[in-house]
Amino acid sequence: MNDPWVDDDNAALLTDLYQLTMLQAYHREGLGAEAVFDLFVRRVPEHRDYLVACGLDDVLRYLERFRFTPAALAYLDSLDRFSSEFLHFLADLRFEGDVHAVPEGTPVYANEPIIEVVAPLAQAQIIETFLLNQVSFQTMVASKAARVVAAAEGRTVVEFGLRRLHGTDAGMKAARAAFVAGVGATSNVLAGMVYGIPVAGTMAHSYIETHDSEIDAFRAFAAVEPETTLLVDTYDTIEGVRNVIRLAREPDTDFRVKAIRLDSGDLAGLATAARELLDDADLGHVEIFASGNLDEYRIAELVRGGAPIDGFGVGTRMGVSDDHPSLDTAYKLVRYAGRSRMKFSADKSNLPGRKQVYRNATHDVIALHDEPAQGRPLLEQVMAGGKRLPAGTRTLQQIADHARREIATLPDEPHRVDISPALAAEIELISQLR
Amino acid sequence: MNDPWVDDDNAALLTDLYQLTMLQAYHREGLGAEAVFDLFVRRVPEHRDYLVACGLDDVLRYLERFRFTPAALAYLDSLDRFSSEFLHFLADLRFEGDVHAVPEGTPVYANEPIIEVVAPLAQAQIIETFLLNQVSFQTMVASKAARVVAAAEGRTVVEFGLRRLHGTDAGMKAARAAFVAGVGATSNVLAGMVYGIPVAGTMAHSYIETHDSEIDAFRAFAAVEPETTLLVDTYDTIEGVRNVIRLAREPDTDFRVKAIRLDSGDLAGLATAARELLDDADLGHVEIFASGNLDEYRIAELVRGGAPIDGFGVGTRMGVSDDHPSLDTAYKLVRYAGRSRMKFSADKSNLPGRKQVYRNATHDVIALHDEPAQGRPLLEQVMAGGKRLPAGTRTLQQIADHARREIATLPDEPHRVDISPALAAEIELISQLR
Repeated sequence: MNDPWVDDDNAALLTDLYQLTMLQAYHREGLGAEAVFDLFVRRVPEHRDYLVACGLDDVLRYLERFRFTPAALAYLDSLDRFSSEFLHFLADLRFEGDVHAVPEGTPVYANEPIIEVVAPLAQAQIIETFLLNQVSFQTMVASKAARVVAAAEGRTVVEFGLRRLHGTDAGMKAARAAFVAGVGATSNVLAGMVYGIPVAGTMAHSYIETHDSEIDAFRAFAAVEPETTLLVDTYDTIEGVRNVIRLAREPDTDFRVKAIRLDSGDLAGLATAARELLDDADLGHVEIFASGNLDEYRIAELVRGGAPIDGFGVGTRMGVSDDHPSLDTAYKLVRYAGRSRMKFSADKSNLPGRKQVYRNATHDVIALHDEPAQGRPLLEQVMAGGKRLPAGTRTLQQIADHARREIATLPDEPHRVDISPALAAEIELISQLR
Repeated sequence: MNDPWVDDDNAALLTDLYQLTMLQAYHREGLGAEAVFDLFVRRVPEHRDYLVACGLDDVLRYLERFRFTPAALAYLDSLDRFSSEFLHFLADLRFEGDVHAVPEGTPVYANEPIIEVVAPLAQAQIIETFLLNQVSFQTMVASKAARVVAAAEGRTVVEFGLRRLHGTDAGMKAARAAFVAGVGATSNVLAGMVYGIPVAGTMAHSYIETHDSEIDAFRAFAAVEPETTLLVDTYDTIEGVRNVIRLAREPDTDFRVKAIRLDSGDLAGLATAARELLDDADLGHVEIFASGNLDEYRIAELVRGGAPIDGFGVGTRMGVSDDHPSLDTAYKLVRYAGRSRMKFSADKSNLPGRKQVYRNATHDVIALHDEPAQGRPLLEQVMAGGKRLPAGTRTLQQIADHARREIATLPDEPHRVDISPALAAEIELISQLR
């Protein structure tokens, strides 16, 4: 399936200019040895117990197709900053490195490599911006969505965010990331087509307003879509519920409406009142669906308060990760030409060397990649010499199933992350060498 | 220039499923009269005095190309929800309506129509989700960027956000929106190519770490890019500045370095110390550029405190509009089949009828479109019968120039927004009719 956001001919230019100026300097200096870069999150934000790794599929797709087109090279030439010899180098540049990664859908913690890239310096450097762009956003949304799913305690959750997310790519990737985290469906039709996610939706307020009265609108809609959800809050919510009941009682009506939707006002109070009215009218099978500025905090409150709500539509606040709309991700050089590297700036250090993460029931261990350690290793090789390996080709359903299983095994207590003895020694050694 | 985010063959499916289920009902009911929809912002967020309208160009591009491909129709057919007669209707559906809009770059306030669509019901309804997606995000970023530019008080601002914005479309549109609001350049190379925005950038920490020592890295980079900016905080910022000074003093050096960049730590203190060191070394012409989690609040603090900083790199916090990562935008039916419409739900009402916004020195007036009122009208026709008019074809530079002029004319006091007498009478009349 075509993915225009990754497949654009000039996607190699979705990068920061400094990547190209650095590459030109490396090229001039003859620096092209093997480099290892880690993509990790520096800090897990407040109100997140863990993050859900997401975005690898787009990364691998990008790496497989990476190239500078003649049009891209002509643009770079027009900047008068790049030598023609360097532009020829770029014309031949492909990604031919190895990639190790934790499977999408895996819970991860601060400083644990989510993706490790091993490639000649230029190849590993030029891809930084795109990798961060995709993995930061998708991991952020999957992590937020996992909280929404948990708060709903088994009730249906539908992703509704496209209209107010940050552009079209965000709308697509948020639908995918939410599905990874256990959200059951999306309103985004293209996400349904591209990713095979179930799509959901029935009517908006404008449908009601187009008709002379609310009950006329309900009647007309139910005639076309009998097993539908009717939106009851366009004018007055309680009156809207009464109109649903009136419709059910009309003679010769084949009433098969499955649910009503509340989209504004005091959702708990309105749901309770609506439930009573429906039950009293022998419409106990008509479910109540709620939407409107929902997130895990509001949903937890409604569930805790016993509001008779059967499902939630969640949009903007989940898809922009409203309380933490960015993740402090980094893509850092950890090894070059056979030597571990490390940055020491204030608050922005990183762990040197090639690593493996081992998961145990109560804690993880970040170790050097060839160091034996207790636990289940999380990083697996997903690409070799620029080609995807089977581990890099999981379906979205497999990823969502994996996420569900992995999240279910996390302990309730905070999960500890330890540094292995050999990694600690490596850090000590590099610090002393400076 | 190709814009894959809008030009995707299946962009018509970048919509919520409920738009399609509503369209099918309208189609079955024979409802296809002329509808008028307004796109507006319900509330201007705290810490924003005004919003900067942005995103119209993508909207018009989308409307011009709107169609359902055979692949899109086959997907919809596979959902078993749409009749083949309705799918044939969709196959022929094009946007042939009129669009009125305030020019991109114009400051706007709550409830003022940013875009008004006049078209047969199905055409005006199906485009809702995409219009909101683009205009919400771009207006949000342009509004945030205008604050960053104001806080910098004439100092250079460069947009750095691509790596941590919400996907690729966000990275592209944020660069464009920031430029509209007065940001001078972007690090995003593809935004440079597609939009003609100046691009900027030199080196990252990984460049320094790839070399055996910081001064070796500086020397090597300056040899390739003499008039560059050197990043001085990889290991120890003050030592980094001293290394720049050492480089300048090396025999036979053609030292033409233009600036240093601070990316971490106490920016005010480090900038002051760096300025002193540079000045004492007769390097008064070397500028100081700062970056790292900056936004308008931090920049205002640095400028107020007199930090000797000549330019700012601003990334994530501007591009995700960190303090308000979404806008409360709406696209509402205001007229159908010749009659004004209005929604009354709690907190979500809208202004009925076709409207015009008139700007005056101290206040705006929202009036009916054919009502005479004081002031300069903001809405202009940009599309007729699905074709762009000259007012819908402004260049990005024209839009940025317009924004600068319009923002400069805003008063310091809060700008009042009045409802005209005829519009107030219309609201009263509709309320009584219910």
